[in-house]
Amino acid sequence: MTYCVGVKVNEGLLFASDSRTNAGVDSVATFHKLFVFHQEGQRLIVVMTAGNLAVTQEVITRLQQGLSTDEPGRNVLLAPTLFDVTMMVGGLLRSVIDRDRSYLQGFGADVSSSFIVGGQIAGDEPRLFLVYPAGNFIESEPATPYFQLGETKYGKPILERVLTPQTTLAQAAKCALLSFDGTIKANLSVAPPIDVLIYKANTLAIGRQQEIAAGDPYFATLSAGWGTGLLKVFADLADPPWAADDAAPGESG
Amino acid sequence: MTYCVGVKVNEGLLFASDSRTNAGVDSVATFHKLFVFHQEGQRLIVVMTAGNLAVTQEVITRLQQGLSTDEPGRNVLLAPTLFDVTMMVGGLLRSVIDRDRSYLQGFGADVSSSFIVGGQIAGDEPRLFLVYPAGNFIESEPATPYFQLGETKYGKPILERVLTPQTTLAQAAKCALLSFDGTIKANLSVAPPIDVLIYKANTLAIGRQQEIAAGDPYFATLSAGWGTGLLKVFADLADPPWAADDAAPGESG
Repeated sequence: MTYCVGVKVNEGLLFASDSRTNAGVDSVATFHKLFVFHQEGQRLIVVMTAGNLAVTQEVITRLQQGLSTDEPGRNVLLAPTLFDVTMMVGGLLRSVIDRDRSYLQGFGADVSSSFIVGGQIAGDEPRLFLVYPAGNFIESEPATPYFQLGETKYGKPILERVLTPQTTLAQAAKCALLSFDGTIKANLSVAPPIDVLIYKANTLAIGRQQEIAAGDPYFATLSAGWGTGLLKVFADLADPPWAADDAAPGESG
Repeated sequence: MTYCVGVKVNEGLLFASDSRTNAGVDSVATFHKLFVFHQEGQRLIVVMTAGNLAVTQEVITRLQQGLSTDEPGRNVLLAPTLFDVTMMVGGLLRSVIDRDRSYLQGFGADVSSSFIVGGQIAGDEPRLFLVYPAGNFIESEPATPYFQLGETKYGKPILERVLTPQTTLAQAAKCALLSFDGTIKANLSVAPPIDVLIYKANTLAIGRQQEIAAGDPYFATLSAGWGTGLLKVFADLADPPWAADDAAPGESG
């Protein structure tokens, strides 16, 4: 599996991805899933990937190869808008699966892949897109200021509770890491290092790019503090009144 | 979808199930999914169901019809152990899907159904089983003192953090309700009323059976307290040090 989160807040964009790939539990490897296309002062584009690694690698490779062309339809640094960049990602995905699907299905392999595309191009706002396995895509809006890829369910509640357009980038980073913490605890196929990129709106520059390794001191403290805090909140909440009669003496919370 | 939780702690057993069924978002109904077979002082058996409603209803109906026979292989009140009861549930499931699968698949319908079976029979300990859609099953053990059915992922982290064999039944009930709270918030096809049954070990009697309706005051207070508590814990945790430099002044979270 994989887990990626992209967040769009007023202050900018936050991207985070794990780096575990697996083909069965006996074939696990580390591959990064966060890719940056950047032209200082002009545009910053981030693409995160999930799904079939051969498929997503080819899409990324074709994006990289397109950089040497002068065709706006193939070169993400020439594409007029992030919408066009996302359309390019979806189109490349479709061309790969059109060619590979029948071969992969012959081996029972899943061709499904998905992408988060975000960033900013000079003259436009920061934008965030989610590309579905069929190559179609949607854009975030303030009511849902984030997208996830891969193993989305375990880590969704914290995003849902915390994130609003007013959330700061630092808070969004903390929130995303807690979302990863819960997901990593629940699914062995999601694992560090976690790649994090923070983009501050209108800078058109890479803000912070951070790799959170296993055992990272801040991540460990955050995870422990969250766990302790949750148990404290749980203990402080009253037991159900209809359960208390049956309970042993002195066990309130 | 459906959500059910069965918990086995030293103090006894806790069962909780939602009561929403749906066949598409435009066909939603309320059906209870928690069924009790009880012989005062002799045995208490609880069966919870998830999956294809026609399939699970037939399994429950056949269990109920078996009560009028004197065959230990058909009457759960005569079955020697809870293992045998669970084997009976799995067998009935197999007989229904053997007969129905081809018809259902002809309409693209999913025949998958699963069950939690728990309780106690005089002379044996309380036991808790999970029946898979194939009719095979597993039993809980202290390292994993709970089973879930249906929409399991959103509500799993709280169970995983809190439950141990030493958890009291009142705490287990509170924990299960928080697990439901998160699941209900995330998946429209899981909804109250929530049926809860608390069984105190070695009583061989129904302890508490409670229906938590939408708007239940305790559930509302619990849900609000949990949400507020989580946001407080989140706010009290330090922002990532590498994100703070980029952050606007005075926003330490």
